[in-house]
Amino acid sequence: MEIALSEAKNAARREEVPVGAVIVNKNGKIIAKDGNRTQEMKDPTAHAEILTIRKACQRQKSERLVGHDIYVTLQPCKMCLEAIISARIKRLYYGAPDTSIPASGVYGITNDKAQKSLALEIYPSIGEDESIKLIKKFFKERR
Amino acid sequence: MEIALSEAKNAARREEVPVGAVIVNKNGKIIAKDGNRTQEMKDPTAHAEILTIRKACQRQKSERLVGHDIYVTLQPCKMCLEAIISARIKRLYYGAPDTSIPASGVYGITNDKAQKSLALEIYPSIGEDESIKLIKKFFKERR
Repeated sequence: MEIALSEAKNAARREEVPVGAVIVNKNGKIIAKDGNRTQEMKDPTAHAEILTIRKACQRQKSERLVGHDIYVTLQPCKMCLEAIISARIKRLYYGAPDTSIPASGVYGITNDKAQKSLALEIYPSIGEDESIKLIKKFFKERR
Repeated sequence: MEIALSEAKNAARREEVPVGAVIVNKNGKIIAKDGNRTQEMKDPTAHAEILTIRKACQRQKSERLVGHDIYVTLQPCKMCLEAIISARIKRLYYGAPDTSIPASGVYGITNDKAQKSLALEIYPSIGEDESIKLIKKFFKERR
């Protein structure tokens, strides 16, 4: 998560919303990391998670990342969550909660049998404080 | 939608799940079209909608597609729906319903105030029959 936070800081330096992501393989080795680049790439899908999944899939030469884990500094939006599920990632660790997503469970995922069957394990609040600090600072400077 | 269906047929020829998408600008001009390429690109996010949004954003040099419409041959998954909303696309026209998505409204979107406020208009069942035929044929040949 420290490396994801460092990617988030790099994103902030690029004037992007500071979110970073890291994917590690079954052996705990980092195979992809990146930060948010929606403005730089003029691409609303260029969230840290999507970029990292794409990189990891290229590296693994597969559209599936079975047994891999992803670390994200912010709770993924629904687009990214679906991408994480589609990629068959095993565990999602994230830092700050996204306050724009209803608090009742994580996207209601914990109560959704269909998604439960996909067996994505979700661990919130990892490195939460620093992640929140980064995002608050970013938006404070811009308001 | 005819052009989206033709993109879906091209996808089928590439051995991809046959889904196609087209984005038109405010003047009704096609600015991007593509089909599903998840296997070819080894990228679980390379759905027709995501590829088309990326292309359109590159062409418009903007991460927003305000006033643009998207035509998709199949009801978008949640990842693509979020991408469509993030891109600020105005209208979504789609063909076949995705039977894996609960039938109560479109993703419950019609009852969701937050998403309603984003003002995405959704029109299902456009060119539905041909789209369903394509997808059924594809999976039949592979089972």
